[in-house]
Amino acid sequence: MSALNTDLYELTMAAGYFTAGKTNEVATFELSARKLPDNRNFLVAAGLQQAVEYLSDLRFAADEVDYLRSLVAFKNAPPEFFKFLRDLRFSGDLFALPEGTPVFANEPIAIVRAPIIEAQLVETYLLSTFAFQTMVASKAIRCVTAAAGRPVVEFGSRRAHSPEAGILAGRAAYIAGCSGTSNSQAGKNFGIPVFGTAAHSWTMSFRTEEESFHALQNLLGEATVFLIDTYDTIEGARLATKLGNPCWGLRLDSGDLIEQSREVRRILDEAGMHTAKIFATNDLNEYRLAELVRADAPIDAFGVGTQLATSADAPTLSVVYKLVELRKDSVVNYAAKFSNEKSTLPGAKQIYRYPDHDVVALASECNSDFSGGELLIRPIFIGGRLVESLPAAPQIRAYAQSAIHALPKGLMSLEDSIPYPVEISPRLIDLAESLRARHGAVRQ
Amino acid sequence: MSALNTDLYELTMAAGYFTAGKTNEVATFELSARKLPDNRNFLVAAGLQQAVEYLSDLRFAADEVDYLRSLVAFKNAPPEFFKFLRDLRFSGDLFALPEGTPVFANEPIAIVRAPIIEAQLVETYLLSTFAFQTMVASKAIRCVTAAAGRPVVEFGSRRAHSPEAGILAGRAAYIAGCSGTSNSQAGKNFGIPVFGTAAHSWTMSFRTEEESFHALQNLLGEATVFLIDTYDTIEGARLATKLGNPCWGLRLDSGDLIEQSREVRRILDEAGMHTAKIFATNDLNEYRLAELVRADAPIDAFGVGTQLATSADAPTLSVVYKLVELRKDSVVNYAAKFSNEKSTLPGAKQIYRYPDHDVVALASECNSDFSGGELLIRPIFIGGRLVESLPAAPQIRAYAQSAIHALPKGLMSLEDSIPYPVEISPRLIDLAESLRARHGAVRQ
Repeated sequence: MSALNTDLYELTMAAGYFTAGKTNEVATFELSARKLPDNRNFLVAAGLQQAVEYLSDLRFAADEVDYLRSLVAFKNAPPEFFKFLRDLRFSGDLFALPEGTPVFANEPIAIVRAPIIEAQLVETYLLSTFAFQTMVASKAIRCVTAAAGRPVVEFGSRRAHSPEAGILAGRAAYIAGCSGTSNSQAGKNFGIPVFGTAAHSWTMSFRTEEESFHALQNLLGEATVFLIDTYDTIEGARLATKLGNPCWGLRLDSGDLIEQSREVRRILDEAGMHTAKIFATNDLNEYRLAELVRADAPIDAFGVGTQLATSADAPTLSVVYKLVELRKDSVVNYAAKFSNEKSTLPGAKQIYRYPDHDVVALASECNSDFSGGELLIRPIFIGGRLVESLPAAPQIRAYAQSAIHALPKGLMSLEDSIPYPVEISPRLIDLAESLRARHGAVRQ
Repeated sequence: MSALNTDLYELTMAAGYFTAGKTNEVATFELSARKLPDNRNFLVAAGLQQAVEYLSDLRFAADEVDYLRSLVAFKNAPPEFFKFLRDLRFSGDLFALPEGTPVFANEPIAIVRAPIIEAQLVETYLLSTFAFQTMVASKAIRCVTAAAGRPVVEFGSRRAHSPEAGILAGRAAYIAGCSGTSNSQAGKNFGIPVFGTAAHSWTMSFRTEEESFHALQNLLGEATVFLIDTYDTIEGARLATKLGNPCWGLRLDSGDLIEQSREVRRILDEAGMHTAKIFATNDLNEYRLAELVRADAPIDAFGVGTQLATSADAPTLSVVYKLVELRKDSVVNYAAKFSNEKSTLPGAKQIYRYPDHDVVALASECNSDFSGGELLIRPIFIGGRLVESLPAAPQIRAYAQSAIHALPKGLMSLEDSIPYPVEISPRLIDLAESLRARHGAVRQ
């Protein structure tokens, strides 16, 4: 992905910073969610791998620089600026939460410290990368929680916001605890288990349902899932018992899943197919999963699509990327906003996690003041060099499970809004107060 | 984008069709929205160009085929199947609405007719491509309508569902009538006007607001937009009048936009800056735009971000891709679903548009039976060859404007739900009835 995939104003500012002689100023920006969406007690950080790939490859192609040169906004930019863009690489630092870490409002998900042009330029891409995967991961853990141990597979590529979003939704959902995805590209790119067998059109393309089931069984063997509701669900179930093993089980994709799963289970059991499982799909979300689980519906696994891949009940995350420090000539100036509506805290930060609360402190504070707290934000790039080897998706998923498991249990509630205590360190409060006293109300 | 970016079940079905000797069967699938989202009286079709690029480039790389071969789902697939995948290209037909065409529930947006493996394989990608851009375009026309002639610029890349979605959101919004986008890549790729000048961090990076305004004015000249609310909006406006021309105007990004725009307008006018314009942003959507317009707030143009790029009030579109015909040995079998919940009509279709209603007919019906009706669905690919040269985004936008303008005015209401009459041709009804009689209830 090119450096050109950014808001134009990042580039006009780049030209402005260049022209104003600010290329050596080093800015620190903090990426965080301003508030949690309704129905979320925490977020699950995700998107770091794609951010790292982006920063590693950050550059402008010649024709992209030519395009910018052709725009009226750059008519006064000096010729050296375009040469500068051609040579631009990411030379700064990135600090971030490991993917899979639970995170709360106003806690940094990532921190960028770089020459101001670079730090500013990457804003748009980093925001959408972190926001989208974090949003989907945060929805996915709700589905997984609701399923109470039954596997949940992400099935939403067709309704994701673009084919690229489908791949990333599969990744984010898996990281947060889904068992896999239907997206084959996500499977290959990230080593994620992939699932899927056949659609109704498969059944319809054969002369009879029996022919279609038989052909599927021939191909898939023990992995066969008979989709039984193309014509008549109960007849479909009987037909499946007639074909018998090998098969994994059946899929239900319509109607009253509680009632149908019970009836189908009885049919399977009566035929002695006790090991055959029932997989359910049909516009599911965490609330429907919870309902099915409460009703003790004999469903063994779920596919959740549209609602998960779009985070449909909370399809936006109020992520912001705010200037918190600016270094000129080795003097660090702290920056913050003090408006009631959108206030921010100054300075590069660290998060210390304790069993029942977090403390957000300045990164420059002494770690030993926070003994017993787990230090969450880690260096990823230093001086443009990757200093951390990123875990693969299965490792991220395992880490996420343990990190989420360590949270107070109340946070897992689907309905109740449970606040989690995030304290601000005394030194950070002091810094914010002294800035506020000096500047008065500042917006950013 | 690779052919691998699809749901796994499209590929297991491909292996199954191959194994079952169905490679020569030709399937026709119809892509449509099952219903309009709440708050939408019509959709604006978009995404065709990306669909065409996808079909033109459809292929599997060697390592992708190796990946599939490694999956348990393909362990029984014959070796020839993997060779078949390596050689696979899109050899079928695509029929589609021109982008920018208003479209209603259950009207085809696109129709694919191809050997069944190809037609099935492309389902996932086509659904997400058409759905996402159609969804954003359909939101954008509402914003443009609400703005009542004032330009609306799409500003939502940072909150779009992935960086790729940001580019496509900019395109879709522009097609439907936005004046441009903040996304530089969308600007270059599609010839869309791009907008943007500076953020609050720009102002904060200078010692004083005045220095920052001056530096921006030096760079942008007549394109300068002073963002005046970093510290104090009214002081910011006064400072802008002190710097005076050249400038385009001011931007407001917080607070009560009605009150502030009036006060700022007065300050500008008192300083004789009658030509300086006011641009407003801050979590806008069509309802807020309508409110600002109703209040006659002196705002000249709007930036709409998050709510537009995610279609936040309706972030999913119930698009489906349904088998409507299957040809084996030159016999055409029509296919349809008759369940109450999700019924579909059989056969490849055409839409005829009249001034006050549409008629959906079989594509095989005689055009002259629909004289005076505009034929909406056009051939795009025939036998794998592109037969239509697609218009560029500015041409699509002009077409969309006239096509939307031709709709009954009531459909433009933001609040009222106005149904539009879509009739089904007698022959199509007959075909559906005769199929229903033959098959009974069929789900797909």
